[in-house]
Amino acid sequence: MQLSSTEIKIPTEGFSDTRDITSKIQNLVTESQMKEGFVNLFVIGSTASISTIEYEPNLLKDIKERLEGLAPISENYHHHKTWGDDNGFSHVRATIMGPGISAPFSKGKLVLGNWQQIVVIDHDSQPRERRIFIQIFGQ
Amino acid sequence: MQLSSTEIKIPTEGFSDTRDITSKIQNLVTESQMKEGFVNLFVIGSTASISTIEYEPNLLKDIKERLEGLAPISENYHHHKTWGDDNGFSHVRATIMGPGISAPFSKGKLVLGNWQQIVVIDHDSQPRERRIFIQIFGQ
Amino acid sequence: MQLSSTEIKIPTEGFSDTRDITSKIQNLVTESQMKEGFVNLFVIGSTASISTIEYEPNLLKDIKERLEGLAPISENYHHHKTWGDDNGFSHVRATIMGPGISAPFSKGKLVLGNWQQIVVIDHDSQPRERRIFIQIFGQ
Repeated sequence: MQLSSTEIKIPTEGFSDTRDITSKIQNLVTESQMKEGFVNLFVIGSTASISTIEYEPNLLKDIKERLEGLAPISENYHHHKTWGDDNGFSHVRATIMGPGISAPFSKGKLVLGNWQQIVVIDHDSQPRERRIFIQIFGQ
Repeated sequence: MQLSSTEIKIPTEGFSDTRDITSKIQNLVTESQMKEGFVNLFVIGSTASISTIEYEPNLLKDIKERLEGLAPISENYHHHKTWGDDNGFSHVRATIMGPGISAPFSKGKLVLGNWQQIVVIDHDSQPRERRIFIQIFGQ
Repeated sequence: MQLSSTEIKIPTEGFSDTRDITSKIQNLVTESQMKEGFVNLFVIGSTASISTIEYEPNLLKDIKERLEGLAPISENYHHHKTWGDDNGFSHVRATIMGPGISAPFSKGKLVLGNWQQIVVIDHDSQPRERRIFIQIFGQ
């Protein structure tokens, strides 16, 4: 059993901007030469999430609209009084969705549906470079 | 440290139909003969989730009703324009809840509360056979 | 590759009371003497969740308020008819948020943002001692 760790950086636009990172993760699995195992993906910071989605532009709009129902951007959050921040919605969305997933691979390939991609969702209120810590465990 | 992988298929009815898979997972742990470790469960496809719940029929109704608040079935989703699909709500629910969990076991038994079961929740808009990829890591 | 398991107990007040467990987890990583790996955290029971958050009191209020939108405390849940319980909201919140996360560590330190803490969120309707099962995998 082996472990390989790395960090990747993904430029994002905020407001639950969603980026497909599947090919980057697959490349890391391939480079590791491991055949069976899983990739633990964890976003560094408290205003983003990792999940899977059918990555197509209309669904990305739907996600933004429904997350707006869960934690509206323009709500007056208590958190804004603490630091003068404007990203209470970002934190709430990130905490509810969670910071990471563990994606399996088998025969050297990520085990995903045909219309299932791994994504980082940046909920913050400004463009950022999101850091994702990646650990590949397997053999 | 060992790794054992398998795939199981669970028939589901869609619309956030929730199925208890605890005994199937426990059987796989028992067969693996591992005593300490965890089971990484990951649903293949972008319209279902894995979580835990107190598995009793009334609570399953509550889950459906509250997920209806998060992403209503009859909403007019942008996603429907892409493929002519009708399952925008399924995708939104699945992405927010996430595709998997890592369930620990100790002394050969899943570590769960007395009223805590492992479930697959199929959010799709029709009956399916949901595929779940299962990896047991441990010793 | 090694595995170290333990259980911790955290006193909580319920109603999505959120407690910072980062230093307890870091101490367990340090004691394990492992340098690279991850901590699988899993809450035992079906009315609590594990996630990350910027741990500051105003944001904790925001989380409670937004979870109230997702599953209101005073709603009349079907679950209440099953056992005479009053915690339907607790179960719904817990199932949607999920029971655990896998937090990476590197060079012996948890890989977290500066304003990112690991928390247990107890959604139940009364004070409890929440049990969290912790497994450290690594080398």
